[in-house]
Amino acid sequence: MITFYFDKSKDIPLYEQLYTYLKKSIEKNELHPQEKLPSKRKLAQHLKISQTTVETAYMQLLAEGYIKSVPRVGYFVLDNLNFPKKRKNKIKQKIIAKSKNKFKFDFKTNMVDAKNFPYQKFAKIKREIILDKLERNINEIDFFGLFSLREKIADILFAYRGIEAIPEQIVVGSGSEHLISLLVILLGRDNSFLTEDPAYIKNYLLYKEYGAKVSACGLDEKGISMDGLKKSQANIVHITPSHQFPSGIITPVSRRIELLNWANEENNRFIIEDDYDSEFRFSGNPIPALKVLDEYDKVIYMNSFSKSLSPSFRVSFMVLPRKLVKRYRESFSYFSCSVPITTQLSLERFIANNEFEKHLNRMKNIYKTKRDVLIEELEKAFGSNIEILGYDAGLHFLVRFKTDFSENLLIELAKIKLVRVYGLNEFFINKNRYKDEPVLVFGYSHLELDELKEAVKLLKFAWSEINR
Amino acid sequence: MITFYFDKSKDIPLYEQLYTYLKKSIEKNELHPQEKLPSKRKLAQHLKISQTTVETAYMQLLAEGYIKSVPRVGYFVLDNLNFPKKRKNKIKQKIIAKSKNKFKFDFKTNMVDAKNFPYQKFAKIKREIILDKLERNINEIDFFGLFSLREKIADILFAYRGIEAIPEQIVVGSGSEHLISLLVILLGRDNSFLTEDPAYIKNYLLYKEYGAKVSACGLDEKGISMDGLKKSQANIVHITPSHQFPSGIITPVSRRIELLNWANEENNRFIIEDDYDSEFRFSGNPIPALKVLDEYDKVIYMNSFSKSLSPSFRVSFMVLPRKLVKRYRESFSYFSCSVPITTQLSLERFIANNEFEKHLNRMKNIYKTKRDVLIEELEKAFGSNIEILGYDAGLHFLVRFKTDFSENLLIELAKIKLVRVYGLNEFFINKNRYKDEPVLVFGYSHLELDELKEAVKLLKFAWSEINR
Repeated sequence: MITFYFDKSKDIPLYEQLYTYLKKSIEKNELHPQEKLPSKRKLAQHLKISQTTVETAYMQLLAEGYIKSVPRVGYFVLDNLNFPKKRKNKIKQKIIAKSKNKFKFDFKTNMVDAKNFPYQKFAKIKREIILDKLERNINEIDFFGLFSLREKIADILFAYRGIEAIPEQIVVGSGSEHLISLLVILLGRDNSFLTEDPAYIKNYLLYKEYGAKVSACGLDEKGISMDGLKKSQANIVHITPSHQFPSGIITPVSRRIELLNWANEENNRFIIEDDYDSEFRFSGNPIPALKVLDEYDKVIYMNSFSKSLSPSFRVSFMVLPRKLVKRYRESFSYFSCSVPITTQLSLERFIANNEFEKHLNRMKNIYKTKRDVLIEELEKAFGSNIEILGYDAGLHFLVRFKTDFSENLLIELAKIKLVRVYGLNEFFINKNRYKDEPVLVFGYSHLELDELKEAVKLLKFAWSEINR
Repeated sequence: MITFYFDKSKDIPLYEQLYTYLKKSIEKNELHPQEKLPSKRKLAQHLKISQTTVETAYMQLLAEGYIKSVPRVGYFVLDNLNFPKKRKNKIKQKIIAKSKNKFKFDFKTNMVDAKNFPYQKFAKIKREIILDKLERNINEIDFFGLFSLREKIADILFAYRGIEAIPEQIVVGSGSEHLISLLVILLGRDNSFLTEDPAYIKNYLLYKEYGAKVSACGLDEKGISMDGLKKSQANIVHITPSHQFPSGIITPVSRRIELLNWANEENNRFIIEDDYDSEFRFSGNPIPALKVLDEYDKVIYMNSFSKSLSPSFRVSFMVLPRKLVKRYRESFSYFSCSVPITTQLSLERFIANNEFEKHLNRMKNIYKTKRDVLIEELEKAFGSNIEILGYDAGLHFLVRFKTDFSENLLIELAKIKLVRVYGLNEFFINKNRYKDEPVLVFGYSHLELDELKEAVKLLKFAWSEINR
């Protein structure tokens, strides 16, 4: 007869203690295959517990397949339960965590200012929409995204970028990871994609990881090289015409026309316009989107709220050409929009309340000040040894150094002072860059004014020898 | 000389009006290629505006590449600007929106109760974390997910599922779309995946769309067929052992051991345990996860908060075997976690405050009542013509009908009464189901008690003839 002592001090029901004991006994082969378990009545008497307690434990073992029931005979331990042997070395191996950023200042791109986000207003909106709207939307996972948010995005696109899009063309997704995975499926893995080089390398890698054919094409002074594009045999090109990343080149209207004409030559050609960062041009108007000229319906426009709000909000969107909308609807109806409904609802209200516009205008001034201070400090520190490039748009700019030092040496010297700067070479996909003077890419959006000054001070120490 | 009238009533700066006028004139070929623009001074005099206004307009045209500057000579319209012709039929074609659900009641699965979500508490938590924590995390996009949330998920896994996982093994992502796309990349598209049949077909389609080789394997009374699995040549199997979807089969421990041994035979074999819905077993304890027995480190465990909180929150997670953690870290370091930081932070606090546990316990009772009422109503209406299957777990169950009517006929008759019911056949990937009596799958979680009663009343009308 099974003997077993209940631990009444524990907060675990008796049936569960009995169940666990029996299960372990079976796993350890103390109760043998085919062994008959005592009847419920007998075991209950023996253990001085109720028959229901025994029954509940037996039912659980039965449901999990540890025992079987033979009607009118009783319960038997199952055969052939050869459990995997416990690993002897099953210690909790420490899996080394990602090493923390050890730099004092890091000029990385794709960050936002953390101090000047309207936290109070955003918290208020979140609270409101959860109380007002979430109940109606708690099962809402439309694979295009929330319609009312797409209406607001259409408004923004018209107001800021001159693009006339209807909400039915707009797809909301969480970041370029998601949108690019959708595009690879929508357009087909058999297409041949082309990205710029240098570029935001992540996009290139995403195409590759998602199983598409992808290559990279060099730039000329107008953006992606038309010769390179034509030689590549690619039929889908992913470009950043408003502000090439990272070079800052603005693709002029003549090249835009060339690109559109190229796309119009074949049915399966498309242009993916990655309009990142276009919100932040500091002088004059923003450069209009290529999509504005898209009379042939060949441009897939893509943007995100990563710069205008925060990269950690993970809200991106794209405008599909009308001919792709139907295909998207047919292929993706079983997908769910990857952005949480609370995020979509609160973003919708943030835009509707004009908070988005206010925030953008405010940040434009803040970022312009940061940029001006950083450029001033760099010019004070390095004078005629540097030249600033692409400073008019976006939350980064380039600095060309007139020195014999290599790009890598500049980076390594800065690291010693705990400042991380990035070489233009780090943005190249094909390592074939023409060896010119070193160029560094400075992202400054997340650093405070005093941090910018302090960082340049450290760089001045680091690079004190460059002027020889 | 350019003649142009400013509209001073409009809220558009003069330079922008001038810029737009000049740009349109170039696009319409009214200003010809190579034509010299008037000097800034002359045009300013002529239009009675400041020279700065003219200069700003010219600078914008220059930046966009409509004109070029020849030093000490002036500005010229660029050559070869052959703009795409405006499409004549560029009407705003109405793209037909997805037809709205026209049913009065829809017994679909994968929904939650909208009425009993703790909106007040959730709103409070959201507000708090935005004010307390967002500033520190606004640029946080760790590709594993927020560490502190992963710690909480590890706690839940241990408490509810008996799984001992460390946060370093856990990856957070937005829904099965995202996790499956990661797995296809992590494991490699050259692997051969296998899903159950019948199944949650979406997962099968996702593997396929993401470019993996995938097939589907029938079930026996213990879950996925071992014979089918072995014949399939697949090396990665995606299963729902705790509660097979949609059949409700609980895979017994003997089959679990067989599966683990199968996985252990080859280095590249893995089991993806999809533990959806395991929270909601209504009698006894939850069925333990297969992962608990995973001594060989071969099980990728996957679950989501779609049922326990809401499908529209888009939070899923997986536990990687230790050997895959390193590979994930190396391959995905440039990815960003697809779940917004506010969602991650608020979920972390929701769990930490015990709100998650409270909500689960509360919903378990609510769902149990709904299930009991629905079963009672169905049995009252159809008596011995039906048999309820798999009613003990999850937010759906199966109803087998003893009738000559086909499954499709039952579905169509219900549609006439504006009730959507789902046939088991709709969950089959290979259309080879043994033609047995009709079986319908009832998801009931989103319907209120009076709706359930009303819906069954309509079904009784719809199916009044089944008993002949």
